[in-house]
Amino acid sequence: MIKKVDHIAVAVESLDEAVELFERTLGLRVTHRESAAGFDVETATFDLGDVALELVEGTSEASEVRKFIKARGPGLHHIAFAVDDIERSLASLKAKGVRLIDETPRPGQAGSRVAFIHPESTHKVLIELVELERKA
Amino acid sequence: MIKKVDHIAVAVESLDEAVELFERTLGLRVTHRESAAGFDVETATFDLGDVALELVEGTSEASEVRKFIKARGPGLHHIAFAVDDIERSLASLKAKGVRLIDETPRPGQAGSRVAFIHPESTHKVLIELVELERKA
Repeated sequence: MIKKVDHIAVAVESLDEAVELFERTLGLRVTHRESAAGFDVETATFDLGDVALELVEGTSEASEVRKFIKARGPGLHHIAFAVDDIERSLASLKAKGVRLIDETPRPGQAGSRVAFIHPESTHKVLIELVELERKA
Repeated sequence: MIKKVDHIAVAVESLDEAVELFERTLGLRVTHRESAAGFDVETATFDLGDVALELVEGTSEASEVRKFIKARGPGLHHIAFAVDDIERSLASLKAKGVRLIDETPRPGQAGSRVAFIHPESTHKVLIELVELERKA
């Protein structure tokens, strides 16, 4: 089901401050920034070879990222796995009794489709599935 | 300085239960298990292409992983970046005023040498540097 790690996301309070910090201390460079309106977040992405490190700031009080920071503080937020067929993956997980946050995929970055698995079903690790390209 | 993501580590309360859960739900397979005595942890590793997903259980009350779980609960614990020259990376970070947990490298898995950066300096993200092979 899982092909590879697509990205690792970090919940931050201020995207500008975190980008400045990661660029200055680690020598990373942001490759793109994006607003994901459906998630009430703004993201900044560092490409690290085949895996992206994504900083995520919540842009409204309703944002899950803001809620996460209130509950746990900023830090590592989720890990995203690339899958070939997101519908099949979600159906397979559901059949195994895994609790899903998204029963059907939502639009993600760059034409991808994404869905989150509930951390209660994955040892408190928030996992996102990403299907990178739409099927023909 | 940073070449790639080496691994992502998840703090778990029970390695056996977490391995069973990740294998059953996500279809992952553990490639190796290891005790890292110097860190008071036991690990189980899933290889996901070029990046490893590592589950980590603390094996003593003194273990940082147990302390992390007490403070924040289980979940994503740290991200490890591969570097070419760990001494040079640590010296560069120190010169930038970054707080280090390990000022000198410690032995890691499979002959690697590792050092942790203090999360206070990296927006609350615990970062490990890994030099995969010893220099000749």
